[in-house]
Amino acid sequence: MTAPTTNHQFKLARRPVGMVKRSDFDYTQSPVAQPGDGEVLVKILYISLDPAMRGWMNEGKSYIPPVGIGEVMRAGAVGRVIVSNDPKIAVGDHVVGTLGVQEYAVAKGKQLTKVDPRLAPLPVYLGTLGMPGMTAYFGLLDVGKPQAGETVVVSGAAGAVGQVVGQIAKIKGCRVVGIAGGQDKCDYLRSIGFDAAIDYKHQDVQAALKERCPNGVDVYFDNVGGEILEAVLTRLAMHARIVICGAISQYNEAKMRGPSNYMMLLVTRSSMTGMVVFDYASRYAEAAKEMAGWMATGQLKTREDIVAGLETFPDTLQKLFKGGNTGKLVLQVADA
Amino acid sequence: MTAPTTNHQFKLARRPVGMVKRSDFDYTQSPVAQPGDGEVLVKILYISLDPAMRGWMNEGKSYIPPVGIGEVMRAGAVGRVIVSNDPKIAVGDHVVGTLGVQEYAVAKGKQLTKVDPRLAPLPVYLGTLGMPGMTAYFGLLDVGKPQAGETVVVSGAAGAVGQVVGQIAKIKGCRVVGIAGGQDKCDYLRSIGFDAAIDYKHQDVQAALKERCPNGVDVYFDNVGGEILEAVLTRLAMHARIVICGAISQYNEAKMRGPSNYMMLLVTRSSMTGMVVFDYASRYAEAAKEMAGWMATGQLKTREDIVAGLETFPDTLQKLFKGGNTGKLVLQVADA
Repeated sequence: MTAPTTNHQFKLARRPVGMVKRSDFDYTQSPVAQPGDGEVLVKILYISLDPAMRGWMNEGKSYIPPVGIGEVMRAGAVGRVIVSNDPKIAVGDHVVGTLGVQEYAVAKGKQLTKVDPRLAPLPVYLGTLGMPGMTAYFGLLDVGKPQAGETVVVSGAAGAVGQVVGQIAKIKGCRVVGIAGGQDKCDYLRSIGFDAAIDYKHQDVQAALKERCPNGVDVYFDNVGGEILEAVLTRLAMHARIVICGAISQYNEAKMRGPSNYMMLLVTRSSMTGMVVFDYASRYAEAAKEMAGWMATGQLKTREDIVAGLETFPDTLQKLFKGGNTGKLVLQVADA
Repeated sequence: MTAPTTNHQFKLARRPVGMVKRSDFDYTQSPVAQPGDGEVLVKILYISLDPAMRGWMNEGKSYIPPVGIGEVMRAGAVGRVIVSNDPKIAVGDHVVGTLGVQEYAVAKGKQLTKVDPRLAPLPVYLGTLGMPGMTAYFGLLDVGKPQAGETVVVSGAAGAVGQVVGQIAKIKGCRVVGIAGGQDKCDYLRSIGFDAAIDYKHQDVQAALKERCPNGVDVYFDNVGGEILEAVLTRLAMHARIVICGAISQYNEAKMRGPSNYMMLLVTRSSMTGMVVFDYASRYAEAAKEMAGWMATGQLKTREDIVAGLETFPDTLQKLFKGGNTGKLVLQVADA
C-alpha cells in the first residue's frame, strides 16, 4: 500500500446561524500528519453524524467546549490503523474514537477503543454499540428507570438512540410507543417490535398519545424537545420520569423554546432529568456486552443509514436535522 | 351570643382572564347554613390567600378540580366552632380546613384539624404550621434533598413558603440565598438568617447569582417560574435539583412561559421535579411537630401579613400576585 499523503478535512469556518449549511465549513486538503510517540495514524472508514454536533458548533457553556473556528469538525469515527507508535495497537486494527470529519486522523492510542468487524459491521460501533446505544441504555435504564408494565414513549424513535431505547424498553417488559416523522419510519418501528408508532408529520401527537397511551406516559425519553415535548407533558402518568437526552427540533432555531406547560410536572409529580452519556464511561463495556447479547439473540435489531462520500458531509448533516435518516446516520469515507 | 343569620361569601363569577379582578367574583349574602349530622358550623376568623388559588379558578386538568362558576371560592381558613354535630369537636374549638372565602362555613368534622391558639397565633396555622409550611418542609427535604454545605436558592423567598424553605435549609447546614422583590423583603430575609438576598426588581438576577453562589446552585426551590427560573438554570451546579412548587409570575399570564434554557438540565445533569403538598398528608403531624420545635427554639421565625376585612378579598388577592406581601398573607374576617 502506498502511504497516503493528502488529507481532506472539514473545518469549522464560522458559528452557524439557524440551520447548519455548507458555508459554515471549509473543505480543505493538507498533508497527512505523522503520529508521534504513543500515537497512531488512522484511516477513517465511517464517520458518525450526531445531533449533538450542532451544539458543539455554538459558542457558550455546555458539557464540552465548542469546536474552535478553524478546527477540524469534531465527530466520532471508526477506522483502520495504518501506522502505529503505540505498542498496544497494531497496524490493521480497527478503532473508534473522536477522530473528526476527515480522511486521516492522528490520535493517542489510549484515547481509542479497538473494535472487531467480525462481531458486528463497523457502522454499528458508531450506533447501537457506540455512543448512541450507550446513551439509550443508560438514559433509559439509569435515568428513566422503567418498570415492567409501564408505558415508555420515545421521540426521534427511528433515530440512532430512539430505536435502541424502544427495543430495550420492550426487553424490560414495557409498552412502547415511538414518535417519528413519516410512514416509513413508523413502519420500521413496528417492524422492530414497538407497540405503536405516531407519525408527528401527519398525526395530532396529543390525540394519538391519548389513544395509544390510555394509562398515560410513565417514561418519556426526549430526543426532540419543542412541540412534541409539550404534547407528551399533557399525557404524563403520575410520578412520570422524563429523560432529557436531546432537543433536535430546537438546535437550529435562533431561540430555544422551553416547554410552556412544564407545570404539568407539578400536576403529575413528575421529574425531568438531563443526562450526558460520558458520565457512564466506566460502564460502557458492561452495557456493550449486554447489548451485543441481545443483538445475538435477535431481541435488539439495528439499522444504519449509510451515505457515501466525505464531501457530502454538510448536506448529510442537514439530512440529520431534517429527519431524513432512518436508523443511525453514518458517512462512509472509504471502503476498507 | 346571638346565633348568626347572615353569611357573606365570595363566589366565583367567571373564569379570570389575565390578572384576577373584583369582577371575577360575586360578593353575596345568604342565610347561614345549618350543620347536618357529623358536621359543624365554623365562624371563620382568618382566611389563607395562596398563589395556588389562581390555578383553581382556571378550567382544565390540574391536581384538584377547578372551582365551579357560582361556587364559593375555595380557600383554607381557620375559625372557631359555634355549632357541633360531631362528638369529637366541641363548641369553642379552633379548627383549620378548606372552608372557603366566607364568614361562616359548614364542614364535616372529620375534614377539619383542631389547632391550639395557646401554642401559636391562629394565622400561623395557615402559614408556617399550615399548608405553606408543609410545602416548604416536604418540598425542600423530600424533593430537593439538600446536603450540608450545599447552596440552596429559593424564589418568592419572603412569601409564606419561601421564608420557611430558607430557614429549614439553614437548619440543615446549607448556604441559603433568597430572591425577592424590593429592599424591605431582602432586609427581612437577612434578618431571619439568609446568607444573601437578591432583589429581582433592582438587580440583575443572573449576575447576582454568579456573585452570591460562586459554587453554583445545588437546590433551587422555585415558587415563581418565568425569568427567574431561567436565570437560575444558568447557574446550576452539577447534579442540581430544582423543586417545582409554583410559578406565581405566570399564573395571571394568558400563555405560560416555559424555561427556554431547560437544556441546562442536560449540561449539568440536573433534575426538575414537581411536588404537591397533599401527597404528604400522612406526615403533616410529624413535620408540624418538628417545625413547632424549631419555632420554640427560635431557629424558625415566621411572619404573617394580615389584612382585615372579608370584603377586601379581591384586592388582597391581587396584592399577593403583585408581590405586595412579606410573609404569609392572611385575610382577617373576625376578631374572635
